[in-house]
Amino acid sequence: MTRKSVGILGATGYTGAELLRILLGHPGVSVEWLTSEKFAGRKISDVFPGLRGFCGLECRSVSSFKDLPEVELVFSCLPHGTAMHFTGRLLDNGVRVIDFSADFRFKDPALYEGLYKAKHRLPQYISDAVYGIPEIFREDIRGAHLVANPGCYATGVILGVLPLLKEGLVDENSIIADAKSGESGAGRAPSLDHHFPESNENARLNPGAASHQGPEMEEVLSSAAGKRAGVTFVPHNIPVNRGILTTVYTKLKSEADTAGVLKAFEDFYKGEPFVRVCSEGRLPDIKDTRYTNSCSIGVTMNRDAVLTVVSLDNLVKGASGQAVQNMNLMLGFPETEALGFQGMFP
Amino acid sequence: MTRKSVGILGATGYTGAELLRILLGHPGVSVEWLTSEKFAGRKISDVFPGLRGFCGLECRSVSSFKDLPEVELVFSCLPHGTAMHFTGRLLDNGVRVIDFSADFRFKDPALYEGLYKAKHRLPQYISDAVYGIPEIFREDIRGAHLVANPGCYATGVILGVLPLLKEGLVDENSIIADAKSGESGAGRAPSLDHHFPESNENARLNPGAASHQGPEMEEVLSSAAGKRAGVTFVPHNIPVNRGILTTVYTKLKSEADTAGVLKAFEDFYKGEPFVRVCSEGRLPDIKDTRYTNSCSIGVTMNRDAVLTVVSLDNLVKGASGQAVQNMNLMLGFPETEALGFQGMFP
Amino acid sequence: MTRKSVGILGATGYTGAELLRILLGHPGVSVEWLTSEKFAGRKISDVFPGLRGFCGLECRSVSSFKDLPEVELVFSCLPHGTAMHFTGRLLDNGVRVIDFSADFRFKDPALYEGLYKAKHRLPQYISDAVYGIPEIFREDIRGAHLVANPGCYATGVILGVLPLLKEGLVDENSIIADAKSGESGAGRAPSLDHHFPESNENARLNPGAASHQGPEMEEVLSSAAGKRAGVTFVPHNIPVNRGILTTVYTKLKSEADTAGVLKAFEDFYKGEPFVRVCSEGRLPDIKDTRYTNSCSIGVTMNRDAVLTVVSLDNLVKGASGQAVQNMNLMLGFPETEALGFQGMFP
Amino acid sequence: MTRKSVGILGATGYTGAELLRILLGHPGVSVEWLTSEKFAGRKISDVFPGLRGFCGLECRSVSSFKDLPEVELVFSCLPHGTAMHFTGRLLDNGVRVIDFSADFRFKDPALYEGLYKAKHRLPQYISDAVYGIPEIFREDIRGAHLVANPGCYATGVILGVLPLLKEGLVDENSIIADAKSGESGAGRAPSLDHHFPESNENARLNPGAASHQGPEMEEVLSSAAGKRAGVTFVPHNIPVNRGILTTVYTKLKSEADTAGVLKAFEDFYKGEPFVRVCSEGRLPDIKDTRYTNSCSIGVTMNRDAVLTVVSLDNLVKGASGQAVQNMNLMLGFPETEALGFQGMFP
Repeated sequence: MTRKSVGILGATGYTGAELLRILLGHPGVSVEWLTSEKFAGRKISDVFPGLRGFCGLECRSVSSFKDLPEVELVFSCLPHGTAMHFTGRLLDNGVRVIDFSADFRFKDPALYEGLYKAKHRLPQYISDAVYGIPEIFREDIRGAHLVANPGCYATGVILGVLPLLKEGLVDENSIIADAKSGESGAGRAPSLDHHFPESNENARLNPGAASHQGPEMEEVLSSAAGKRAGVTFVPHNIPVNRGILTTVYTKLKSEADTAGVLKAFEDFYKGEPFVRVCSEGRLPDIKDTRYTNSCSIGVTMNRDAVLTVVSLDNLVKGASGQAVQNMNLMLGFPETEALGFQGMFP
Repeated sequence: MTRKSVGILGATGYTGAELLRILLGHPGVSVEWLTSEKFAGRKISDVFPGLRGFCGLECRSVSSFKDLPEVELVFSCLPHGTAMHFTGRLLDNGVRVIDFSADFRFKDPALYEGLYKAKHRLPQYISDAVYGIPEIFREDIRGAHLVANPGCYATGVILGVLPLLKEGLVDENSIIADAKSGESGAGRAPSLDHHFPESNENARLNPGAASHQGPEMEEVLSSAAGKRAGVTFVPHNIPVNRGILTTVYTKLKSEADTAGVLKAFEDFYKGEPFVRVCSEGRLPDIKDTRYTNSCSIGVTMNRDAVLTVVSLDNLVKGASGQAVQNMNLMLGFPETEALGFQGMFP
Repeated sequence: MTRKSVGILGATGYTGAELLRILLGHPGVSVEWLTSEKFAGRKISDVFPGLRGFCGLECRSVSSFKDLPEVELVFSCLPHGTAMHFTGRLLDNGVRVIDFSADFRFKDPALYEGLYKAKHRLPQYISDAVYGIPEIFREDIRGAHLVANPGCYATGVILGVLPLLKEGLVDENSIIADAKSGESGAGRAPSLDHHFPESNENARLNPGAASHQGPEMEEVLSSAAGKRAGVTFVPHNIPVNRGILTTVYTKLKSEADTAGVLKAFEDFYKGEPFVRVCSEGRLPDIKDTRYTNSCSIGVTMNRDAVLTVVSLDNLVKGASGQAVQNMNLMLGFPETEALGFQGMFP
Repeated sequence: MTRKSVGILGATGYTGAELLRILLGHPGVSVEWLTSEKFAGRKISDVFPGLRGFCGLECRSVSSFKDLPEVELVFSCLPHGTAMHFTGRLLDNGVRVIDFSADFRFKDPALYEGLYKAKHRLPQYISDAVYGIPEIFREDIRGAHLVANPGCYATGVILGVLPLLKEGLVDENSIIADAKSGESGAGRAPSLDHHFPESNENARLNPGAASHQGPEMEEVLSSAAGKRAGVTFVPHNIPVNRGILTTVYTKLKSEADTAGVLKAFEDFYKGEPFVRVCSEGRLPDIKDTRYTNSCSIGVTMNRDAVLTVVSLDNLVKGASGQAVQNMNLMLGFPETEALGFQGMFP
């Protein structure tokens, strides 16, 4: 089998490194090039010593390319706003793109521009972009040229709430999602907030993530459930490297017990390889899904409050694993290819 | 000045050690004895090397006392259920007691017995017991013979919600409190859940604490606010040693903005030495209050959802510091005596 | 290909879980049974939720077997002393054994008995047991019926010193090895020392490991280098889950610079798939090898002091990965089979 | 009593913050001003919320002073090289200075210049500068105008070795000091190495600290012991916020057992308020001294290797606490004033 060729824009951040790790284990693709402005000219195995013997590529500066070398698909792990230039050129040339940034997550460019304080320079591509949660938009993803890879928090909340909204079990206007995220979610650029002695032995709100991914959740949930959803989303940072545990609070609006609510999840995710619904009495923790592409969901209740507890790894199902899952759909590979890792313990 | 004499039942757990540390810096009291079944016969400074040069006492087994030696006040840091025997004898002899357990936190012994799966053996003392949050029950505490020292989670939630209920600003029936607690809150007895490799790099729900302290919050809030309060309380464990950060979600029921809500807190806690209301735009983190007797409160809003963020140290304002604050009131010391520590950073 | 059958004694400790994870990814073996006294009767995927969908086995009590079911090879992850009974029966029946305990690491039963305070009940098997570091004893391991899987600390120190001794570069009598180990090295049984609030934010010596694995290093180094080696081994616990970083101090006894010392390592480990010698100027850290079967070695010098810095994962190259490497040799698989994992970052 | 006035250059790093905390509890001094370029114009209690109610000072830029306002003593917590300009002006004006940088730790300016790659601009003050370890240079410190506050690592190693050298118990040429330090030792400026996800779950060598503080140790030990000492100093970073645990390896050169070695320490530090020698069989850990001005020393032996284990808090006895101890001597206060804090547990 000839491998299909892919490229990575921004390979030396946490999502880029995780993406590369997964792709190196994929039998159907070949990473042709990867870029990093910070480490341009250095071998990727010098940047991440764990890659010695696994990858001989050198980091290139984007400016070193006359043209972005031809590949079938490009992953862009660049921050919001910075990748649009390349994305446009790639799409114009028929290259398919999976974009980790928020640039194509919103159908309304004005909403994007308000949230991210930037002009959207490629509004013509918005309508064709597909939001990349395969469990919800699988068929659209297969044919997509541009996939907007979802936010890490948004993935968990959407997966943890959508079945309840679709079944009409809970009030769609008063969803509260309280998330606890590992520090890698804030990226690899050093800052005082994420300097070790400041983060360690601490927990705090992360209001920036709230203002961005809250509207993302509302847009996707509203569109997927067919009714306007209101989400109060509150992310917190806790001193772990990876993983997000989100407790979602909704209010029951029809008669149901825990078993009934769990059944709605089981029915919705029946056959899904990467969503695990916990049996009654069990709730997931961060270690349940760490390092894996799984999202684990548990349910408990307090009177008419339904608590959905969602665990996922922010760098895998919350970013790079989901991107590969999307790529598998787009390029015709088995959806689980290269994503079967069971995690590490402890 | 002759110092007033006190004793400590259960001095080698985390709350006992913290209590001893604070009392050793108190100019008005003298710790006469302390008990520990596990370390009986050993010097407390061998158990906690940091105490070398500060305390020469030896841990005694309770059974080594013919009678509990006479003191003015006893702190009981023993677990729920185990201290009642001593509490009864002490109170009968006119010794005042501050009880860290839940034994006297509920006015209805049946509620206690249901929650803690144990028969209440001293129902005759329940009606005179005072719930020990000075900011709410200060005058009753001064004259109390028996103070029920509050739960660590309950302290934060009650302080973070009561002003809103009293002012009628929010719906009292749909309070959601999502707490993130350090591992010391689970006590010093080793268990698999709190074994380092299991807790580290993890976050998970702590359902046991929910079932106990949720009803405690509801009882105290209902009694203090004069209306039946409903609380969905969900505690989580995160890998830090100390501190609780709680985000409390309530629903606005009258017109108010963040400034207006903050004003309700400022008015309610005006002059309080240990409650700090953050200015608009600032929210506390765990380090704000770590190692101190302060409770720090911030407010933000999302449409009609009011978010109160509360930070306190589970072993100080959540346990031993608050106990000394209660003792100061009971014995006529300045309320802030020995509690002025500003914390450590980082 | 028919898979070869193996069994695991003691599968629910950290080394057992790691072993199972690796074996589940091995195309040539099939885990037929696994035992756990603590979790007998429960599915292994309930004990380690990450295994759901990967392993359907139930934990069995050893006492539930009339005879240990027939397999080609058994891994014993039981503690020192407890496995001898089974080991003897298995070997008598022609089953090959890889023993994680120290029971067969010493050629002199008296030395073992002195260190581990226990009578050796199978002295007749000692002489045929092979010490399981493939980089040193590869050929003997291929034919061995009983492999003594090395201590996690010992593996690193032996690999980090042997080339220097063989080349006669350093004084063999004054080796100092200062190790910093993750907490999983102490096993999964809860204890006060490894209770989260005690270990977290701390570092301390671990004298027990010193007294056992120091003599182990001396015996193996002396035998492999052909000269009596003296090691002062000092292990420390630090608050990370996995990994050991050891700085080994030796004293140069012939003329050499860093490049020359590095060359001795490169020559010695030429072609070895799991030992990586760092280029001059680079020293490994714990993340270099975490979750992998690699041992990474760097060298620096200070006057006549040679510093060898060794990084390995205590549960992989320091235990279960090395055990599978040994099994691969014993059963005729490629030595690297199932051991190619590149680790996770961050 | 009128308080004596002091100022702080560089108050918003970790040592500055710790110094301020200690000085605010000192009954004999008044902090008149503090500088911070990064937070100039902001109240110090906004930078460190724990200080609200304890300190009303505003951070000033050094450039905002026409002249540095008159005080009796200035603490300079500025990095190496940057403070010399002020130090010179202060000393010329008769203000006494305690300098946290390395600028005046070496008697030979050429050695300083080689290590710190900078020209020494105040060589005329070097000869009068006193190295600030009170346990060794107490009398000189009392009269000093300029105290060079020691390096955090150097303090521990010097205290842990000097008695052995003075007594001639060990070989002075082959001292090996392996230190494990908390992350705050690297300062408060964010960098990739100390970004949370990189430091957490890791341990690594810190070669920069080695090259600087190794020679510092050698110079001070040689001068204090009266014989040329050779130290191989190897610092490591571990993921804790504060504290240094150093294991020092020396080689016995006269007959002695552990009790005899311990006696040398006890004799040397007899009456010292801040050095604690552990009884035989006990070794200190980081928590023994965390948050305190104590240095705790334990001894164990392996054949002729003497292991001295030293614990201290890098920000207290390793920096700001020792600076206040020096100030107490210089200004005639009791040496222990404001330094009696017993630490926190856990």
